[in-house]
Amino acid sequence: MPLDSDTDEHFMRHAMAVATRAWGDTHPNPMVGAIIVEQGRVVAEGWHQRAGGPHAEVAAIKAQGHRPRYDATIYVTLEPCCTQGRTGPCTDAIIERGFRRVVIGAIDPNPAHAGRGVALLREAGLEVVHGVLAEQCADINLIFNHWIVNQAPFLAAKVAMTLDGKIATRAGHSRWVTGEEARADVMRWRRLFPAIAVGAGTVIADDPALTARLPDAEIYCPTRFVFDRRLLLADHLDRQVFNDNWRHRTILVTETESNQSRLHRIKDHGVTIWELPTDPPNIFYKVFQKKCINQALTGVLIEGGCGLLSDMLSECLLDYLLSYRAPKLLADDDALPAFRGLNTSEMAEAITLEDPQHALFGQDVLTRGYLNYPEA
Amino acid sequence: MPLDSDTDEHFMRHAMAVATRAWGDTHPNPMVGAIIVEQGRVVAEGWHQRAGGPHAEVAAIKAQGHRPRYDATIYVTLEPCCTQGRTGPCTDAIIERGFRRVVIGAIDPNPAHAGRGVALLREAGLEVVHGVLAEQCADINLIFNHWIVNQAPFLAAKVAMTLDGKIATRAGHSRWVTGEEARADVMRWRRLFPAIAVGAGTVIADDPALTARLPDAEIYCPTRFVFDRRLLLADHLDRQVFNDNWRHRTILVTETESNQSRLHRIKDHGVTIWELPTDPPNIFYKVFQKKCINQALTGVLIEGGCGLLSDMLSECLLDYLLSYRAPKLLADDDALPAFRGLNTSEMAEAITLEDPQHALFGQDVLTRGYLNYPEA
Repeated sequence: MPLDSDTDEHFMRHAMAVATRAWGDTHPNPMVGAIIVEQGRVVAEGWHQRAGGPHAEVAAIKAQGHRPRYDATIYVTLEPCCTQGRTGPCTDAIIERGFRRVVIGAIDPNPAHAGRGVALLREAGLEVVHGVLAEQCADINLIFNHWIVNQAPFLAAKVAMTLDGKIATRAGHSRWVTGEEARADVMRWRRLFPAIAVGAGTVIADDPALTARLPDAEIYCPTRFVFDRRLLLADHLDRQVFNDNWRHRTILVTETESNQSRLHRIKDHGVTIWELPTDPPNIFYKVFQKKCINQALTGVLIEGGCGLLSDMLSECLLDYLLSYRAPKLLADDDALPAFRGLNTSEMAEAITLEDPQHALFGQDVLTRGYLNYPEA
Repeated sequence: MPLDSDTDEHFMRHAMAVATRAWGDTHPNPMVGAIIVEQGRVVAEGWHQRAGGPHAEVAAIKAQGHRPRYDATIYVTLEPCCTQGRTGPCTDAIIERGFRRVVIGAIDPNPAHAGRGVALLREAGLEVVHGVLAEQCADINLIFNHWIVNQAPFLAAKVAMTLDGKIATRAGHSRWVTGEEARADVMRWRRLFPAIAVGAGTVIADDPALTARLPDAEIYCPTRFVFDRRLLLADHLDRQVFNDNWRHRTILVTETESNQSRLHRIKDHGVTIWELPTDPPNIFYKVFQKKCINQALTGVLIEGGCGLLSDMLSECLLDYLLSYRAPKLLADDDALPAFRGLNTSEMAEAITLEDPQHALFGQDVLTRGYLNYPEA
């Protein structure tokens, strides 16, 4: 089997599939997959299963059991690390094991390390190919990449809209905007993120569980942020986030100097409260981000509603948008839009999605990408 | 070469490409393509070029020049006609010529004829396969199919929106919502429709030419309807639709008993005026449709703005929607929405697109389909 670029892509796709077996399980680390190919066949697979556990390359080497043949190639979705962390550098493990060829997907997004693994392997005389399905390999680690580069949580907004940009009817009904396939895809994203956030209005209107429910898998509950600056939820303590088995994963985010009696009623349900300052006005979300960093919450999936999303968008805090659109029209001025605001900019200076990706789920289209804010 | 279904699809795709050489030129007739295949090779092509001209099958037979070989198959994108029209029935031509095998794409949408061509060919002893790429073959003739079945013009709305459902900024700027590729695709649709419509507001704000400008082709100007119920355009007579080489193709649609002095100022530019009654209120568009029928205008592409689209949508008159969405957010309550209205229906009863199709143009997604109105 010739080791041409088609073959490399084929095996890199296999390595990506191996990487994503740990979907959502590796925070604050990336998902990484490695496979070893000899005589055109995959002879070993390894993946990073959780922070603190062995890296993918080491797991694959261990799985192989024997020394690599002269023609062996190790494929790894992310550039091997070259520094001593909780485990030894993977570049050393690859060199010492006797590999002669390494194929790499994405380069380490950390500017301090990017390209160093490749250089070390080449210095040791190995043939190194990198950039094979680089974008797809990087796409697996949206959260990690942002966290490493910006040292801040990756804030991704998820919205499900009609063609005319509505997320709910005037009566607040939103459950049936998108179809079954799109809703199943949302579950995959919920499973990926260490945290999820909604506004109090969404909790009142929809009583969401905010858990990831995937077929043939245990229910997963991320850290659940509920933004409730005016403590409206003190009157809605029957909601799932306050009463289900994961209520200790609910964090109510409110303002300092809130009404103490309302606050106590909520606290009594056993949920955590974050009281954040409001002076100056932009401090509120800044402190929120800071507290996420302290808890190593690398990414938050913000599922609405309109108030929370618009608030964060207007402060240019949303990093990424996942927009599902159903082929429906509401044609109702009083239905709920996805984003409110008073953006006076012209179309050429609108907020744009960088390198948007599109995917079809049933009849609904997901468009996702990094948000690019026009310069003020 | 085996005459299996893959092969049939391959040749039907060829016949579709032949059919669309007459893109927009066949009204009120459909576009139809026919090819003759012998020994696995295309030996003749024919297509319907204009109403009154030869049908595709006859054109292909003529192009072949010789009698079909024993293994010849004729592929035709639409069921051959079996009635005497301006030309003789194509079923006779195929039988008399000596074909033994016919492969058909879409069945005749006319309920009075559907399936009769197939039956006649079979009665004559020919092998007939139909339904090969039937949906794609029917999709070529969206306008004709609607016209034949409903005996009414096909009213298709085209909108270019941001992800949040806005068609223009608060200042009315809309030109740069979608990118170059999407705008080029709009030109293809304009070239297809015998007529186009916009509201007066769009003419005032954008001064559009409303022509189809395609590479390596002459500029095409459809019948251009401008809806101006209050004769606002009497103050904007410098606009292109009143002054360019095709101003005789501009029809201003207004109400009876309009201000006569304003009306005369517009008439003086040489454009046609349609004065339509307004009592009872729903008569206005009914008479518009009637007049389109009388002029054999089989389809109208309605390009906005919001007022005209919302008006027609609220009367359930729009048959089809072409929605281009750019990966942008305006996040401005005061930006122009695609559709206004006060639709109180719940999401499950929203206006939906039937069997929507999606296509990517650059970074923009086109979603198109028949509009399904919830029952009142």
